[in-house]
Amino acid sequence: VLTVDSWDILLPDFPEGPLCEYRKRASFSWKEMAVFIDEEDLIQFKNRIFSAFENDPVFARYPGEDVTLEKYRELTFLRCKRLFEYEFLKLEDIMEKPLKIMVLINCLGMYDWSLGTKYLLNAQVFGGAIENTGSERHQEFVKQTSNMEIFGCFALTEVSHGSNTKGIRTTARYDPSTQKFIINTPDFEAAKFWVGNMGKNATHAVVYAQLYTPDGQCHGLHSFVVQVGKDSAPLCLFAFVSHFISSIVPDYSLFHIFHNQCCTYFHVVPDPWNTFLQRTHKGCTRSSSRPTSSLRLSSQIPLKCKLFNKPRSQWRLLPYLAATYALDHFAKSLFMNFIEFHIGLLMKDKSPRQAEIGREIHALSTGGKPLASWTAQQAAQECREACGGHGYLAMNRLGDIRNDNDPNCTYEGDNNVLLQQTSNYLLSWVNAKHQDKAPIASPLGSVNFLEDYNHILGQKFTASSVEDCMDSSVPLAAYKWLVCYLLRESVLKLSHEKQSGSSDFEARNNSQVYYCRSLAIAFIEQTVLQRYHEYTHDPDTPSTLQPVLKHLSALYGLWSLSKHMAVLYQGGYVSGEQPGRFIQHAILELCSKLKDDAVALVDVIAPPDFILNSPIGRADGELYKNLWTIVLQGSKVLERPSWWAEFCVNKPLVGKLRSRM
Amino acid sequence: VLTVDSWDILLPDFPEGPLCEYRKRASFSWKEMAVFIDEEDLIQFKNRIFSAFENDPVFARYPGEDVTLEKYRELTFLRCKRLFEYEFLKLEDIMEKPLKIMVLINCLGMYDWSLGTKYLLNAQVFGGAIENTGSERHQEFVKQTSNMEIFGCFALTEVSHGSNTKGIRTTARYDPSTQKFIINTPDFEAAKFWVGNMGKNATHAVVYAQLYTPDGQCHGLHSFVVQVGKDSAPLCLFAFVSHFISSIVPDYSLFHIFHNQCCTYFHVVPDPWNTFLQRTHKGCTRSSSRPTSSLRLSSQIPLKCKLFNKPRSQWRLLPYLAATYALDHFAKSLFMNFIEFHIGLLMKDKSPRQAEIGREIHALSTGGKPLASWTAQQAAQECREACGGHGYLAMNRLGDIRNDNDPNCTYEGDNNVLLQQTSNYLLSWVNAKHQDKAPIASPLGSVNFLEDYNHILGQKFTASSVEDCMDSSVPLAAYKWLVCYLLRESVLKLSHEKQSGSSDFEARNNSQVYYCRSLAIAFIEQTVLQRYHEYTHDPDTPSTLQPVLKHLSALYGLWSLSKHMAVLYQGGYVSGEQPGRFIQHAILELCSKLKDDAVALVDVIAPPDFILNSPIGRADGELYKNLWTIVLQGSKVLERPSWWAEFCVNKPLVGKLRSRM
Repeated sequence: VLTVDSWDILLPDFPEGPLCEYRKRASFSWKEMAVFIDEEDLIQFKNRIFSAFENDPVFARYPGEDVTLEKYRELTFLRCKRLFEYEFLKLEDIMEKPLKIMVLINCLGMYDWSLGTKYLLNAQVFGGAIENTGSERHQEFVKQTSNMEIFGCFALTEVSHGSNTKGIRTTARYDPSTQKFIINTPDFEAAKFWVGNMGKNATHAVVYAQLYTPDGQCHGLHSFVVQVGKDSAPLCLFAFVSHFISSIVPDYSLFHIFHNQCCTYFHVVPDPWNTFLQRTHKGCTRSSSRPTSSLRLSSQIPLKCKLFNKPRSQWRLLPYLAATYALDHFAKSLFMNFIEFHIGLLMKDKSPRQAEIGREIHALSTGGKPLASWTAQQAAQECREACGGHGYLAMNRLGDIRNDNDPNCTYEGDNNVLLQQTSNYLLSWVNAKHQDKAPIASPLGSVNFLEDYNHILGQKFTASSVEDCMDSSVPLAAYKWLVCYLLRESVLKLSHEKQSGSSDFEARNNSQVYYCRSLAIAFIEQTVLQRYHEYTHDPDTPSTLQPVLKHLSALYGLWSLSKHMAVLYQGGYVSGEQPGRFIQHAILELCSKLKDDAVALVDVIAPPDFILNSPIGRADGELYKNLWTIVLQGSKVLERPSWWAEFCVNKPLVGKLRSRM
Repeated sequence: VLTVDSWDILLPDFPEGPLCEYRKRASFSWKEMAVFIDEEDLIQFKNRIFSAFENDPVFARYPGEDVTLEKYRELTFLRCKRLFEYEFLKLEDIMEKPLKIMVLINCLGMYDWSLGTKYLLNAQVFGGAIENTGSERHQEFVKQTSNMEIFGCFALTEVSHGSNTKGIRTTARYDPSTQKFIINTPDFEAAKFWVGNMGKNATHAVVYAQLYTPDGQCHGLHSFVVQVGKDSAPLCLFAFVSHFISSIVPDYSLFHIFHNQCCTYFHVVPDPWNTFLQRTHKGCTRSSSRPTSSLRLSSQIPLKCKLFNKPRSQWRLLPYLAATYALDHFAKSLFMNFIEFHIGLLMKDKSPRQAEIGREIHALSTGGKPLASWTAQQAAQECREACGGHGYLAMNRLGDIRNDNDPNCTYEGDNNVLLQQTSNYLLSWVNAKHQDKAPIASPLGSVNFLEDYNHILGQKFTASSVEDCMDSSVPLAAYKWLVCYLLRESVLKLSHEKQSGSSDFEARNNSQVYYCRSLAIAFIEQTVLQRYHEYTHDPDTPSTLQPVLKHLSALYGLWSLSKHMAVLYQGGYVSGEQPGRFIQHAILELCSKLKDDAVALVDVIAPPDFILNSPIGRADGELYKNLWTIVLQGSKVLERPSWWAEFCVNKPLVGKLRSRM
């Protein structure tokens, strides 16, 4: 147990500066909060990673530096290699503290998601896919991945098939005479696309193809380990495999690959058991960490300009700060659920409970990823606008932070498509209930309240003042009603559609907007809020931290709920002026209460200056001094451009081309 | 009057391809629509501009080309110079058809907003400021601007003062002994910043400074024409002007300037009379044209993937298509209002009506710019997600289009700050009514319905079926109620705040969120809808076009209104399940009706292939063929990277640095 003194080593004080005055106003100790939400050994681990980066020239970079794409890719490759040398996580580290995986991913991402992605695609997505679904003879690939002997990628998505993986058109035909699989990409539209790492770095790919046996029967998607590109030969185009049967070796093929130009990638993994780790890490985790950096930046500018005195500024930003805390907690707790599930996999647990945990985690991550990525996207946008012009200066990195999060809305599954899987899960409980009357109860408890469905639907909003609303139990109760209501309406809508003659497929398509899609969103928000409410109201939570944590929980709950006010009115949960007004005023009141805690709350979660790499985001809060220093360092920033002479001498002949039009 | 045949010259058919099937489904002729909403001579003008660009090597560029920032700036400069040679618009052209200004701005922006911004800042913002507020002796600058003898910029914003122009700290002291103005920038925080063109190109600036007379009295902000940088000397830092009094010449000074690194800019213009042209053009116009490009791109992908059959895909995109049409019309109509006002200025009309038109246009543009820029921002985001992975490929340009619009949310005035001016305008009518009981009536009629305030507040939603809702008269009536309700509530809130002891300033700050801010948004949406409703329901609208136009109007109105459903319930305009359901189903029904018109609607407004410069946005709809062609042209796209040998030979020593941590 570390003492308060040793917190100062773990979490050094911030430098003196204009933010000190605001830091002093906090109602809590930021160090105590950091230790509470992150745990000391995880903070130590994070510090080690960040410190390694900061002291290693390979990871050096400067605000406003301008490297070519080519050079940037090379740097990322060298940094990736360096990660192997650091070996931040061995297997025994993971076994002892699985959350360290999340910490490592977050740290990589806070430094640079290009690096994080490159490293994780190889280590976890490629390696993980083989480890989880390969047989004994495939494990050699995993071993070679772990020391960069080979470098892997995940080739599922094709040019014309992303979300609809069933439509994937690459085929694998088994040829018994040669005992080989012939993998064929018939045309460009079937070419594997958006495969991160594949264009330049990968030596091997897990390739998904429709498996055909010699009798012509299709057995659906199967995965193959395939070597891609050989030595330094240029990667060749094989549109028609028939030309290259002679070069096919067992389980291997050469085929056409791309790497898109902006180092981002998009793939959809159909196999739920393989995706949990990815979604849990990448989706919720990555997205839940995204607002952090932008919030550090944006909270400093309004403070320096004293704009945080304005309710409007507080209202624009503080809900996102609350959301960051709530989503961060959700990501961690879901990750721990996944670890439990993963251990079950390793122990070859075939029980019904194991299967049910899997289903439930799938539903929570297909909901969590959209919620986190969209929240982060909106947060980054709001933070940027809150910075005024400074939000658009490239070296301040608000644009980069926003851009890094954007693909989260699409890869690992398009957000809208994923939400359908969340609502499908809920509908399956309704169907099961219909059939066998068994109580609705899931291993992680996220659907248990639905057992009380009828009783909940009879509830109404009971708060009779703004003060009544200032605890997250109020939005939580409203959310339970909301989910039950949307569930009922979705079931009715689906039934109505089928009675009108629609097929199952059509009925589902016609029941997404305002029904199943809204249901999924409400359910995941409710789940996030439920978990954060329990966490912040736990009797073991330090009393010094409880007030601010409860405020965060209440603000997140009310702000999130307020997006659904129309439905609460529509369904009769609330009526009249007061409920709407109470909730609005409670939100503003909570923002006002959290205003003085804002800087400290950001201090808890923000990355160090070196990692954030933004002059206006430095912890000393010397906004303008830092901006001034960096801006002047820009290349030739105070010089006329190279073409100045041209301008002075070579004036245009106005209108000389007018007749040409 | 052109015949139907000559439309084919004005608006050539699109090439054959997969989109033809969808084009045939349209309920109207896209050429007829184009001529109706744009007029033939404006289309001709647009064609001439685009054709000039397409045939001039100076404007050549290629999807996926990768130029350095330095090179890009040089190209933009050369292209800007070329614009002078084309002289697309002479004064007589503008007099004859003022809307040609809007067309030119739109065309420049569709090609490249960097070019548009550079050109317009000089021609209109710098030139316009001097023309409108300068005296006779300043007109020489305007003349020199028009042939690029000098190149201007607009220096208002400072490092620490953007929105709060009253706080600007650059000073101008008149020294009667030398008859000179000494312009002083005391420190970095007062340095002029975000001044587009200033860093590299400008020779002169309109500089805003606080004017001090020798008696020490401050006369507020005044503008000065100042020469910046001399010949090829580096631009120098003058933090303390006292060192440089000897180099001060009448009306001139050298002082510290910057140009931010990403060629964007942010400035707020305090003088409303000068800003109309900018806002009308840049804000509404620019933003209203922004969704166009992204809609062309995004409508093609879901179509090729046949996703437009899904209500969800329609619902995600078609409202933005409707919004684009409605905002485009609003921008044009507001522009024409501004022309009327501008003519009044030129005629030195000092009547009360002239002043009132000015106030009203100000309110409509301070509301219109936020509405258009935020709508465009959300549209670009939705369009990008709708494209799946293809939305993130740099050469497809969805990111660029989104980035180009982003600063619209901040420059010309931060959106949230501007909205306060819109609500102030409405509140001033309430105050005037209170005092002199004069009827509420503005020259352009946008507030006239408020005269009916009490009657409107007594209204309720009367639609009794989904079909009833399918005309924009329904949301329009709801909007009138909504504005009246929010106006009443805002007045009450302000009054309550003042009674609690708040100053005027505090009271306003505490009455923005959920009150005045919401009022401003509702008012501008109502105004846009009102104008579009009248336009689409005008008896002179061709009957062949009326159905689709009315659908657009209804969809925009209902979709826009639906964001305020909670308030409609809260205030009692609607109650129970039905209104919410009717509106939701009407939105979905309208999306379904517009599905077959979508491609043609985009054809009407989309820029040509050369201008859009995106392989997936080409008019032939050969999505994958075009992507394939362009991607393969990428530099070394099928080759291993330069560091491949390093990877093969130089493997990391796993864990060698682990002990370092």
